[in-house]
Amino acid sequence: MRDVEIIGIGMVDFGELWTDSLRSIWAGAALAALDDAGVSEVDLITVGCMSPGLFVGQEHLASLLADEIGMAGVPAGRVESACASGGLAVRSGFAEIAAGLADVVLVTGVEKMTDVDGADATYALGTAADQEWEGFHGITFPGLYAMLARAHTARYGTTREQLAAVAVKNHRHGLKNPHAQFHLDIDVDAVLQSTLVADPLRLLDCSPVTDGAAALVLASAERAAELRKGRPRVKIIGSGLSTDTISLAGRADLTELAAVRRAAERAYAMAGKGPGDMDLAEVHDCFTIAEIMAIEACGFCEPGRGGPVTEAGDTALGGRLPVNPSGGLKAKGHPVGATGVAQVAEIALQLRGEAGDRQVEDATTGLAQNMGGSGGSSIVHILEVV
Amino acid sequence: MRDVEIIGIGMVDFGELWTDSLRSIWAGAALAALDDAGVSEVDLITVGCMSPGLFVGQEHLASLLADEIGMAGVPAGRVESACASGGLAVRSGFAEIAAGLADVVLVTGVEKMTDVDGADATYALGTAADQEWEGFHGITFPGLYAMLARAHTARYGTTREQLAAVAVKNHRHGLKNPHAQFHLDIDVDAVLQSTLVADPLRLLDCSPVTDGAAALVLASAERAAELRKGRPRVKIIGSGLSTDTISLAGRADLTELAAVRRAAERAYAMAGKGPGDMDLAEVHDCFTIAEIMAIEACGFCEPGRGGPVTEAGDTALGGRLPVNPSGGLKAKGHPVGATGVAQVAEIALQLRGEAGDRQVEDATTGLAQNMGGSGGSSIVHILEVV
Repeated sequence: MRDVEIIGIGMVDFGELWTDSLRSIWAGAALAALDDAGVSEVDLITVGCMSPGLFVGQEHLASLLADEIGMAGVPAGRVESACASGGLAVRSGFAEIAAGLADVVLVTGVEKMTDVDGADATYALGTAADQEWEGFHGITFPGLYAMLARAHTARYGTTREQLAAVAVKNHRHGLKNPHAQFHLDIDVDAVLQSTLVADPLRLLDCSPVTDGAAALVLASAERAAELRKGRPRVKIIGSGLSTDTISLAGRADLTELAAVRRAAERAYAMAGKGPGDMDLAEVHDCFTIAEIMAIEACGFCEPGRGGPVTEAGDTALGGRLPVNPSGGLKAKGHPVGATGVAQVAEIALQLRGEAGDRQVEDATTGLAQNMGGSGGSSIVHILEVV
Repeated sequence: MRDVEIIGIGMVDFGELWTDSLRSIWAGAALAALDDAGVSEVDLITVGCMSPGLFVGQEHLASLLADEIGMAGVPAGRVESACASGGLAVRSGFAEIAAGLADVVLVTGVEKMTDVDGADATYALGTAADQEWEGFHGITFPGLYAMLARAHTARYGTTREQLAAVAVKNHRHGLKNPHAQFHLDIDVDAVLQSTLVADPLRLLDCSPVTDGAAALVLASAERAAELRKGRPRVKIIGSGLSTDTISLAGRADLTELAAVRRAAERAYAMAGKGPGDMDLAEVHDCFTIAEIMAIEACGFCEPGRGGPVTEAGDTALGGRLPVNPSGGLKAKGHPVGATGVAQVAEIALQLRGEAGDRQVEDATTGLAQNMGGSGGSSIVHILEVV
């Protein structure tokens, strides 16, 4: 298996991009990554996108987008695993290079979510849940995560304030990320007083609806050595996937994200590393409870300790293990198909030492954890400075 | 790069499966393939499906389906390239094993198209075209392929009867395939007298709307040697992808399927073979003109000779190079996401010598060509007896 490095990073400002189209947003990120890598040709384009069919009425997306940047003719394909589609795109590009089927791959993620109204967006997002067991009965994602929060609270005593601490931290981090959707300093009281969405989750516990795209250029170690000569290099040392039942009804335990745990275990095993070796992480905080459960599943703390360690500041910039220095899905925004790519982009940027005001000092190893639905799938990547 | 073999083949009967759900249809094919391979555990599940969001209101499909057969926890992901989604699923599984990231992969394709009415199915299929340049202006796929037929006729003199000869041949082949949607013996007159859909294409020039699934188990050569000891073995020796503009407006030439030509060239190069080495082929005959153009693009005849060679019987069972012995999309049916997997399944079955009444004698090498939209993407695989 060949070594795979990240040689290009491209992001656009996340937000409600009313005047842009899916293809223009995507092209912004893709061209930025190609420019950063210093390449104009690639062997393959992968696109992570959850539901262009429901959000913008367009499938066959990868061919369309290849053409958009003048690359009609280049092999291209889309991957989907709901909100983990971006992570799956990274995996897909990684596998092609590892196999020797490609030397340079443009890995991208995109979602244009604001071309439909709120009800249609909620419907589209709801297709990440089990439609027969969950969706058709009326539940949507805030309700599903509220059930996880209640189960976690019942077993571990996780408090309302601990949930709020996740949002407060990630919004503080987001202040330092120019690409973030929100630059908004909030405190615990603001979270506790925000509109109730699905008890115990309130508006400021939820990630927003976002338009955005992110891109990476991956390359074989040989090409990376040429193209990034004399500059910091970042390697993908671990890649792990797993699934779980997508309906909560099928789960053995609602207080653990088993797909995340298994994906992380696989990534750690491939990397020959453990949770204690990580200098920072980006995790999938689509709701505040998700971050608490994700850091437990990744082994950054014991089960049930996610709330307390967050409240203690361990996961803030400057803490023991900074989590979501980018602002996370909560503040940076959550264009679902783009998120998994943006997470890996943030870790790569940090490991290069190019993360500006939010730089984690002396970071050499980091983890990105992406998740689909309410934990029905998860994809974890571990990156390290070469 | 490690060698990859096909150790399991699973199909369900294609048709309008009103009483079945996407998940039950898929499970039928998946379990048949696992059974055929003699394995109960896999390292990865890939699912090719064009638009479960628009057809059945469900995304996050691979996790859902893994759970359906008791494999929640197994890594799983969906891929999409419109009607070439199945071919992309094969490629995805191939890459994972070639890289050494997996030893055994369940590769599947599925589409449930009849849960929506005809207009909604036409809309969903139309998302494989460029929505801004084509779909929003009202054209659908019969019209797009009619334009290709007219261009081909204008340059090469392809006749109405030659188009009909494709349908007649594939329906004859379909009579010998128990899984085919149609078992219907038609003649050229029947095609010429069928309802006009988009001049010059008539109803019997068009593939149908179909529910169906197909599955393969791929394995490393090492595992294949154990699991298929003493039985015929089939290896994937070539895999090629390419794209083109998905809108016809962007094409340099409407008389050639350039994505197919490039994908075939890549697959031939990897295999170290040429068109003359093939003993049979499955090509993407979503419309009769598509088969004529596909066999030209794969190099089975000179450009412009697709009609005459078909009319002469060269591509019929017993001819020089049997094309679509399964009945093709035309008679076997075209559940879009399943098609690319079903094509590879047919070639594998033929190379094992297990194709029953439609067996191509002494076949040792075959090609499967899958296509998205009106040629915006194509994926070609070449298989050979080990």
